[in-house]
Amino acid sequence: MKNYVVGIDIGGQTCKLGVVDAAGKVLAREVIKTSDNPDAAVIVGELAAAVRKVIDVSGKKGEIRGIGVGAPNANYYTGVISHAVNLPWAAHSEVPFASMLSEACDGLPVAITNDANAAAVGEMTYGSAKGMKHFIMITLGTGVGSGIVVNGEVLYGSDGFAGELGHTCAVRDGRKCACGKSGCLEAYCSAIGVARTAREWLDSSDEPSLLRKVSDITSKDVYEAAVAGDKLARRVFDFTGRLLGEKLADFVAFSAPEAFVLFGGLARAKEFLYQPTLDAMEANLLSIWKGKVKILFSRLDESDAAILGASALAWETR
Amino acid sequence: MKNYVVGIDIGGQTCKLGVVDAAGKVLAREVIKTSDNPDAAVIVGELAAAVRKVIDVSGKKGEIRGIGVGAPNANYYTGVISHAVNLPWAAHSEVPFASMLSEACDGLPVAITNDANAAAVGEMTYGSAKGMKHFIMITLGTGVGSGIVVNGEVLYGSDGFAGELGHTCAVRDGRKCACGKSGCLEAYCSAIGVARTAREWLDSSDEPSLLRKVSDITSKDVYEAAVAGDKLARRVFDFTGRLLGEKLADFVAFSAPEAFVLFGGLARAKEFLYQPTLDAMEANLLSIWKGKVKILFSRLDESDAAILGASALAWETR
Repeated sequence: MKNYVVGIDIGGQTCKLGVVDAAGKVLAREVIKTSDNPDAAVIVGELAAAVRKVIDVSGKKGEIRGIGVGAPNANYYTGVISHAVNLPWAAHSEVPFASMLSEACDGLPVAITNDANAAAVGEMTYGSAKGMKHFIMITLGTGVGSGIVVNGEVLYGSDGFAGELGHTCAVRDGRKCACGKSGCLEAYCSAIGVARTAREWLDSSDEPSLLRKVSDITSKDVYEAAVAGDKLARRVFDFTGRLLGEKLADFVAFSAPEAFVLFGGLARAKEFLYQPTLDAMEANLLSIWKGKVKILFSRLDESDAAILGASALAWETR
Repeated sequence: MKNYVVGIDIGGQTCKLGVVDAAGKVLAREVIKTSDNPDAAVIVGELAAAVRKVIDVSGKKGEIRGIGVGAPNANYYTGVISHAVNLPWAAHSEVPFASMLSEACDGLPVAITNDANAAAVGEMTYGSAKGMKHFIMITLGTGVGSGIVVNGEVLYGSDGFAGELGHTCAVRDGRKCACGKSGCLEAYCSAIGVARTAREWLDSSDEPSLLRKVSDITSKDVYEAAVAGDKLARRVFDFTGRLLGEKLADFVAFSAPEAFVLFGGLARAKEFLYQPTLDAMEANLLSIWKGKVKILFSRLDESDAAILGASALAWETR
């Protein structure tokens, strides 16, 4: 019986990987710093060596069912990573990553998807969404990502790219977003968006705030100021939660999920975000859904969550 | 072999029904005026008599596979019509309509869903979306309805009510909608919304317009004025199309459909709506989707479309 899987979370400079059992326990883990080499074959070789090492450490050689990978701009249907600006080896090309990694790992099956979809599968397999058939994962990190689960499966759409809720419109003709559009949810409800709101509000008023002493304000600074009771910082979270909740109501009208699961760096500010998000969602729901849709936070151990999310994909590989 | 189905479209005062073959040809049709009786059992009896009659006329007795029904507030999962304000017999109660009708029709299987979902199944089975696995039906009538198809199936969500895109937010803090919320897509991009826009604009300016001669302006009046070259009327459609297109872009970010299919009374104003809708959608799409998502119009014969949509549901009944 092959009762173990490998999960790989691919980032710009580092990749995390681990061997995971069916209960979501990480038996062995590894973090590697990938080289700056623009040749995808070189990176795949480095990763394959790390996979072999982590399997050896876990003692489960021969019992691995497959490899799941979460990576930016990764397409589940095609196995290709394309034009991922943060990955030097896939920034300007289409890399058939799943087949390359499978070949380099002695034919182990490989499934890939983007980070937010991997997180959704992780929550469904091991986390807050266990047993749910309809939920939406929202990752609140540097950007805002989403993984939509419908009938117990990630919604990939006609082309494999469905679920880009971070780039739906939160404020018509609002702030410029990194994607080139204006007013995207990501421009407001990401770590970068929160810092930007704080900076804009500080610039446009004389209101006293602990944040006035901070240079290059980050979302962490805003969070710490809010913890210390800073009124402006708390209002930043009220505003952020309101915009998020308004959009969640629209997403309910789309797929009628049982719950949202929030995850990522910004979701750590749960104490300040939860209530304004819930209030705004409720105020904008059709009456048939009022009081029925939960807003949950990921319960996965944060340091392992990326590995778990990616690994969960591998249970379905063949 | 049972190669025929019955489709029933239930409205406030009238119900349309017909016997349909696999190619979408209506062999016999009937329109009945339902009584004002608030007792659902009476209405079901009237409908069952009409079903027997239309089957007799079609000459296909014994060859009927099942009955599909499109009705307001009809739940596919439960077979219940609940709190449908326009149906006197289901306005204040939960009517187990599917089982009641099946019993009254000698046990023929009955599937029900709301009008917009029925329209989506109709388009997929016989119309513009034939062969598509991912598309979104938008019905632009008195209200705005939607039927979302994912992996070749209607998306019903956790409770059977998914796909209420008419009640997503088009204008934050905008016009009051019939649902009680503000700024819903339905408040702008329905027949009623178009008439309301025209009336508001006439009231707030002195701009000459053919519509100034019309009392109780309807969307048909606005359409006819636009055909006659009226500038204000044309701008009403530009505005309506822009709001619709902006929301379509958000819906693409959700489920990455191949196409939208527009249907309903207002969709007849295709010549004025298409271009502004497409332009606004394209301007708000992420670059991965630009130029790739089609906006189509229903090709089903308008007088039969409601029967066809409902009947298409019946092919899946058992």
